[in-house]
Amino acid sequence: MSTWSITPPDAALSASIQHKIDTKTKPLGALGQLEALAHQIALVQQTLTPTLLRPHVLVFAADHGITQAGVSQYPPEVTHQMVRNFAGGGAAINVFCRQNGLGLTIVDAGVRGSFADLPAVRDEKIAEGTRNFLYEPAMSAAQCADALQRGARLVDELHGGGANVLGVGEMGIGNTSAAAVLMHRLTGRPLAECVGRGTGLDAAGLARKLDTLTQAVTAHPGVGTEPLAVLATFGGFEIAQMCGALLRAAEHRMLLLIDGFIATAALLVAARLGPAVLDYCVFCHESGEQGHRLLLAELGGTPLLRLGLRLGEGTGAALAYPLVQAAVSFLNEMASFESAGVSDDSGA
Amino acid sequence: MSTWSITPPDAALSASIQHKIDTKTKPLGALGQLEALAHQIALVQQTLTPTLLRPHVLVFAADHGITQAGVSQYPPEVTHQMVRNFAGGGAAINVFCRQNGLGLTIVDAGVRGSFADLPAVRDEKIAEGTRNFLYEPAMSAAQCADALQRGARLVDELHGGGANVLGVGEMGIGNTSAAAVLMHRLTGRPLAECVGRGTGLDAAGLARKLDTLTQAVTAHPGVGTEPLAVLATFGGFEIAQMCGALLRAAEHRMLLLIDGFIATAALLVAARLGPAVLDYCVFCHESGEQGHRLLLAELGGTPLLRLGLRLGEGTGAALAYPLVQAAVSFLNEMASFESAGVSDDSGA
Repeated sequence: MSTWSITPPDAALSASIQHKIDTKTKPLGALGQLEALAHQIALVQQTLTPTLLRPHVLVFAADHGITQAGVSQYPPEVTHQMVRNFAGGGAAINVFCRQNGLGLTIVDAGVRGSFADLPAVRDEKIAEGTRNFLYEPAMSAAQCADALQRGARLVDELHGGGANVLGVGEMGIGNTSAAAVLMHRLTGRPLAECVGRGTGLDAAGLARKLDTLTQAVTAHPGVGTEPLAVLATFGGFEIAQMCGALLRAAEHRMLLLIDGFIATAALLVAARLGPAVLDYCVFCHESGEQGHRLLLAELGGTPLLRLGLRLGEGTGAALAYPLVQAAVSFLNEMASFESAGVSDDSGA
Repeated sequence: MSTWSITPPDAALSASIQHKIDTKTKPLGALGQLEALAHQIALVQQTLTPTLLRPHVLVFAADHGITQAGVSQYPPEVTHQMVRNFAGGGAAINVFCRQNGLGLTIVDAGVRGSFADLPAVRDEKIAEGTRNFLYEPAMSAAQCADALQRGARLVDELHGGGANVLGVGEMGIGNTSAAAVLMHRLTGRPLAECVGRGTGLDAAGLARKLDTLTQAVTAHPGVGTEPLAVLATFGGFEIAQMCGALLRAAEHRMLLLIDGFIATAALLVAARLGPAVLDYCVFCHESGEQGHRLLLAELGGTPLLRLGLRLGEGTGAALAYPLVQAAVSFLNEMASFESAGVSDDSGA
């Protein structure tokens, strides 16, 4: 089993950071959540003048055996088709990364079919989709370990290239089902609270999905709450690679931009393996998928955006990135009361 | 009295816009609030391919006679000092406009003291602050009309220069008091629901502020709900100029980025004079000032951000602008199901 050496940022700098924030030309606390974000980023980077370098989004794509049970509104072929759309630059995540200056890599973590004709798609395929966890574990322990390591190595490359900000996203028809069961097993919350409409199920579809996933959980009575066992049994290759990516990025003390429900489920697994990973996370948005709000609460995350997004792909991370930049910009660029000659009654 | 000729956008294009949104490569509605925003912008511009041109923030600054009654945490001199800070580029709004590519003009609508040494500050001074509305109307009817026209002319210049997006912000110690009374008079809500802590009053300070403003309302029993009479009696020069700017911008069919509590109070007055102004508004954030949530509800506005900001200056507008860009980008740049060869089960 992998071990991860993630340590929380040293808090010694905290008072100096807060003093710098409090002496900016604004009432105490007037930048709200951006102030807490600036504080966190400065702590993560252990400096009063943080910088965001080569921010990059990794989108992990994979297929899911559980789609055979009819848990999604869309056919499983859409995973493959959407990877081609990513490679062509036409998906939402392409648009938002271009707009906000983030790099983007599409990773085939386990999609059915070949992308040999698309060199821009990074080949980290574990298999042609997971097995159907209604009947058997989604992946073997060896596949799970391989996926974690592949995710970690991708982050090593980005970090080696100078990136200190990592966003994660995913594409995988069926993966809200996998994420819901991971959440259920690792938090103990009732499955009904974890299961949502995904890409757009109606009430009857949602009821079928809950029924199917209840059967699936019952089919694996021996799986306890050990995170790697849960991940291998119910996860997806994209979720496992994301998990490895997040853990390694926290080891490198990178800032982590967490997207929606699936990315947060990957983070949940990561946090069970290395709890300090959470200190590096910016929770970019609260999605429209019903379990996400509860999962954020479980992890103590306060999202930057609440726009009713339910697309995945890392879109929430890419959309929130200008707010992350704003937190850094105000900390570095705003005048202090003293330097600007403004009266300060704040007591800072 | 001025009249304003604002007409709602022609809704004939609405079905075509929605079809374009629904055939993008994403589940129906999966971009949440950004989809409604894209629809609105396309309608405002009457095109399926909107563009955002020369976005610009006008920050109106003015002093308030009511500060003599001790309604603010900060001394009134801070208004003047902050205008100097804006001119020096060191305030939050400077930082956020630079980051997000918005132009910025600082307008002296009625600040005590001279900025003759600062050519970057636009001189539209009506007087050296309003009078104390605890005892007399804040401004004369002629001053109020002058302020509206000056705000409108500033927008004529921006529009003439090619801008089609206007953000408004303000600086004025004491102006949450003015905004609270405007809200109370024009919505009929109890004053206690409209009054908040401003730049940081404690509970005792808040109680004093409410008491003072209750006296002020009582002192003008003859003022009904006619918007210009209410604005002249309780408003500020920055609020009146903002109001004129918003009305003229809507006449020009520009997109309006609405900031926090004070800007929304200026919009409230504008909406009483020309209700269709609301069709052009993007509500950029819901601030931490307590009346703002209720005021947004009154105007039917759904904010893009809820970050606990309570700074004014147009900072919420500047911070939300990348989301406005994202709405336009996805509409213009995302592939459709057909063009990308992705299976569409959405029924669009």
